[in-house]
Amino acid sequence: MIDDAVRFKGIYTPNLVPLDAAGAIDEAELRRYTDWLIAKGVHGLYPNGSTGEFTRFSVEERRRIVEIMADQTAGRVPILAGAAEANVRETLRACEYYAGLGVRAVAIVSPFYYKLGPESVYAYFKEIGDNTPVDVTLYNIPMFASPIDAPTVARLANESPRIVAIKDSSGDLPNMMRMIDAVRPQRPDFSFLTGWDPAIMPMLLMGADGGTNAVSGIAPELTRTLYDSVMDGRLDDARQQQYTVLRVFDALFNGADFPEGFRLALRARGFEPGRGRQPLSVKERESHGPIASRIEALLGELGFASE
Amino acid sequence: MIDDAVRFKGIYTPNLVPLDAAGAIDEAELRRYTDWLIAKGVHGLYPNGSTGEFTRFSVEERRRIVEIMADQTAGRVPILAGAAEANVRETLRACEYYAGLGVRAVAIVSPFYYKLGPESVYAYFKEIGDNTPVDVTLYNIPMFASPIDAPTVARLANESPRIVAIKDSSGDLPNMMRMIDAVRPQRPDFSFLTGWDPAIMPMLLMGADGGTNAVSGIAPELTRTLYDSVMDGRLDDARQQQYTVLRVFDALFNGADFPEGFRLALRARGFEPGRGRQPLSVKERESHGPIASRIEALLGELGFASE
Amino acid sequence: MIDDAVRFKGIYTPNLVPLDAAGAIDEAELRRYTDWLIAKGVHGLYPNGSTGEFTRFSVEERRRIVEIMADQTAGRVPILAGAAEANVRETLRACEYYAGLGVRAVAIVSPFYYKLGPESVYAYFKEIGDNTPVDVTLYNIPMFASPIDAPTVARLANESPRIVAIKDSSGDLPNMMRMIDAVRPQRPDFSFLTGWDPAIMPMLLMGADGGTNAVSGIAPELTRTLYDSVMDGRLDDARQQQYTVLRVFDALFNGADFPEGFRLALRARGFEPGRGRQPLSVKERESHGPIASRIEALLGELGFASE
Amino acid sequence: MIDDAVRFKGIYTPNLVPLDAAGAIDEAELRRYTDWLIAKGVHGLYPNGSTGEFTRFSVEERRRIVEIMADQTAGRVPILAGAAEANVRETLRACEYYAGLGVRAVAIVSPFYYKLGPESVYAYFKEIGDNTPVDVTLYNIPMFASPIDAPTVARLANESPRIVAIKDSSGDLPNMMRMIDAVRPQRPDFSFLTGWDPAIMPMLLMGADGGTNAVSGIAPELTRTLYDSVMDGRLDDARQQQYTVLRVFDALFNGADFPEGFRLALRARGFEPGRGRQPLSVKERESHGPIASRIEALLGELGFASE
Repeated sequence: MIDDAVRFKGIYTPNLVPLDAAGAIDEAELRRYTDWLIAKGVHGLYPNGSTGEFTRFSVEERRRIVEIMADQTAGRVPILAGAAEANVRETLRACEYYAGLGVRAVAIVSPFYYKLGPESVYAYFKEIGDNTPVDVTLYNIPMFASPIDAPTVARLANESPRIVAIKDSSGDLPNMMRMIDAVRPQRPDFSFLTGWDPAIMPMLLMGADGGTNAVSGIAPELTRTLYDSVMDGRLDDARQQQYTVLRVFDALFNGADFPEGFRLALRARGFEPGRGRQPLSVKERESHGPIASRIEALLGELGFASE
Repeated sequence: MIDDAVRFKGIYTPNLVPLDAAGAIDEAELRRYTDWLIAKGVHGLYPNGSTGEFTRFSVEERRRIVEIMADQTAGRVPILAGAAEANVRETLRACEYYAGLGVRAVAIVSPFYYKLGPESVYAYFKEIGDNTPVDVTLYNIPMFASPIDAPTVARLANESPRIVAIKDSSGDLPNMMRMIDAVRPQRPDFSFLTGWDPAIMPMLLMGADGGTNAVSGIAPELTRTLYDSVMDGRLDDARQQQYTVLRVFDALFNGADFPEGFRLALRARGFEPGRGRQPLSVKERESHGPIASRIEALLGELGFASE
Repeated sequence: MIDDAVRFKGIYTPNLVPLDAAGAIDEAELRRYTDWLIAKGVHGLYPNGSTGEFTRFSVEERRRIVEIMADQTAGRVPILAGAAEANVRETLRACEYYAGLGVRAVAIVSPFYYKLGPESVYAYFKEIGDNTPVDVTLYNIPMFASPIDAPTVARLANESPRIVAIKDSSGDLPNMMRMIDAVRPQRPDFSFLTGWDPAIMPMLLMGADGGTNAVSGIAPELTRTLYDSVMDGRLDDARQQQYTVLRVFDALFNGADFPEGFRLALRARGFEPGRGRQPLSVKERESHGPIASRIEALLGELGFASE
Repeated sequence: MIDDAVRFKGIYTPNLVPLDAAGAIDEAELRRYTDWLIAKGVHGLYPNGSTGEFTRFSVEERRRIVEIMADQTAGRVPILAGAAEANVRETLRACEYYAGLGVRAVAIVSPFYYKLGPESVYAYFKEIGDNTPVDVTLYNIPMFASPIDAPTVARLANESPRIVAIKDSSGDLPNMMRMIDAVRPQRPDFSFLTGWDPAIMPMLLMGADGGTNAVSGIAPELTRTLYDSVMDGRLDDARQQQYTVLRVFDALFNGADFPEGFRLALRARGFEPGRGRQPLSVKERESHGPIASRIEALLGELGFASE
């Protein structure tokens, strides 16, 4: 069922961006991290996602991040580039820029800050879909942005051939099924990616094609193995791996505002993420010590050492 | 994986209660419905659930419903009887009464109306667990009642041997996994049942033991087949059946307040549910015609005729 | 503005029900508490409200509570009796019973457990309004029960003369204004009572007629004074008193599940509420000591001693 | 009570930004609109607020908007400039820029997209407060951004003298009172502004100092009169005016995604706002005709003609 050559497939990694002591993009570390992710078997890269803190960078920095990663990747794996900017015009400019860098597609989050209804969400993506020079992935993350409901996905899939996928971070499995049910008959090339790491296995088993999963930025071996187990029908292995992903996910989310736990974990894998752009209180900095220890212990126990 | 003889397994049916023209329990129709469900292969019966509108009956009526169904069932399938009453003492009296009727276990919803925190939810079930004469299933339905979180389930499972299962209607798959992960090592006899019909297959594949699913009261053939397909490892069949369950579920939920759609559907299967106890406005009654037609058409298309 | 003789006015007290060592209604203490509230100047009494834990008593106990209080009150102040039962028929029976006891009106909470839409909420109250022998107050408490929206209140006010008031515990001031705006022109006799203690003064100033306020069960002097200050146009006094009500309210709500803080506070005023029917964990019982001390200190500081 | 010379007071107008046919800032119309608002008696101006769609403009455009309005205002009324940018460093640069333009203060919305906890919200504003060259107003709008809770406001007020006010758009009156109660004793110069138009009068009566109210951009006469009525103690007038504000507010919010209703209303007052940057679907554009008619009728009925 999920063996369709025309669709996006596999696990894409939404990567954190290492910063240097001055708070600027640490290009060398970002290149090293990119190489490591590819070496560990991720199917694709996803810069400027939520884990990548896209809202905390400037327009120019977002472009620079994709530029560095596209250059370093040099075609070894496809890139899905987060391209949301302040408005449609700016977003389309970003699409053009990323198209020029050779990305496989862009991912565009639904309008955020304002909570828009389905008609406005539709109109936003329709205008983008009509004018983009590169394939577009819808990005649904209702905890942070205006929700993209299943009828809207179906409507856009029917009307906009350049919209080729949805990345859904709601974790709502029946809703993913509703979207698949509504879209796949008309658009067999349309891909469904889950951004909810604790549900990769069940999502794949119910028809999803892959995921964009933050855990893959910390333990790419684990998410790759899980994906392969599901694909090969080794369900007992996959189940055990999915429970492990859940444990890692919970360790990365609990106790610190997202994505601080991922920053701590990246350090545990041997990369220097630097301090994030969101300031931390004294109390937060103090709490990070024990959280980092717990993450390190868990990753060590699972065999994911520092590199 | 889910082949453990000591646990509750399979699909239990939370049944609607047919009412006569005077609004009283229609005993004859309830007996006929009970027989039909058993004949169609449900693994167990679950009177006084949310679909059974337990809050709309009197204390005496709730007992009478279980009495009728236990008598009619005569041990052919196990019964899980909803036993929540106004307070712990009354709930324990109901437990005693249902124990005397030979039910397999009772199901007790978390305290509702007031939204209680985890400590109070724990204390409530602990006192019940310490004094019940019959096995208890926790019933978590956070959209209607105080949530029972995973640490509370684990705590109760560790301390109360008579608490033997949880029925979770949240549909939150990762949370179900957290509960399984926290409880199963210590309590391999503890059963996990999903009350969220659109996710039966993925829940079973991730380790759940069965479900209490309202769709099984309308299309018991379908949920039984789905369960068997999953158990036999026929995943392609199961997936198709799960998508069908989702379509039925959505048809039963959309357009009418729960569980009115189930009442319309029961009529489409050849049973006379009568008018419910919740009054309907003129506008609602008018809207029910088209909803009933759609449900009937869908059930007919799926081969589930009136009997 | 709020000097209309035909409407319900003033502060009604939703009282806790003292229990004896066996967990039964402590009639003597309930009578003593009733006398004390009247002596302290409450405008009316409101048994079987949310503070009165109506859902934790049996049908018979709810009747007994009103019976005791009506007898003890002997007409000194009006009684608003909570009359919600399992379904319309049972609720109407309660209305008849309370009418026979001479209550001023009944208060009926919107259907709870199930979350009903506006049409079903309308149909429920319409059937009650058409058949009740006693005046009815709608009770809107959206955090616990199906919301009663402003158009539904207007519709019921227009169609059901026996529905004479709404008690709104949402605390949503603009929504209270929307209801007043929609209802008052057609029904100048319809009363608006706020159940949100921190907003009594602004609600009265924007057109509400009074409140049913749990703080008045603990510090009836305070809420009476606040009401009088607003009525007399002494806004600086009223403001200071409203801030005091807020402080008391927060002390009673923080740290313990509602209405445990009110039980602790009642003891601080010299009444013995007994242990509640909702069991408490060891941790909760331990936490109640410090909470009780804080409440006692605050009440002492405000001059509300034990009696 | 609210007659303290050191605090921000009055109604500030969060203005829409007129766009020309090419979608660029329509400078001439923005200048004309600025003059009109001042002539109508607004106490201050608030560019780059939520009504001003700050997220839909580029960094450069946000600066240009303030520049135009500061130039046009020429000191006639104070300006509160929205200064939130992608991160602390960029936000501080904007603060510096607006300080150079002579604004009275900046307003900085809590971090959005990510939902941050109180410690991170505190750390964000603390770093800004320690480094800003201009007074800062906290902007709490929990429906769109991370909430700023009362203890965090108190903490920041105590530690950061340059943080001088909070603009609260939650509409939660008791919470505003909690903030006032916690802050005013230590910081009598700290100002409390409500961004919730339906509650201006009650907020002022409970101790708030003013508001930043979108309705004042459409009917500045109305909000000015309301403010003056409250200040002068003419409560009956004020009440009637507040109900009128509520009716206008509801007309501007209902039926269209915010702030489209305000754009339609601005046109009804004789200004050409142009098309917004958020695309509209055909269905939305069709629905705007009737909404515009209703708004125009209401404004006409209230005596607010086109100019």
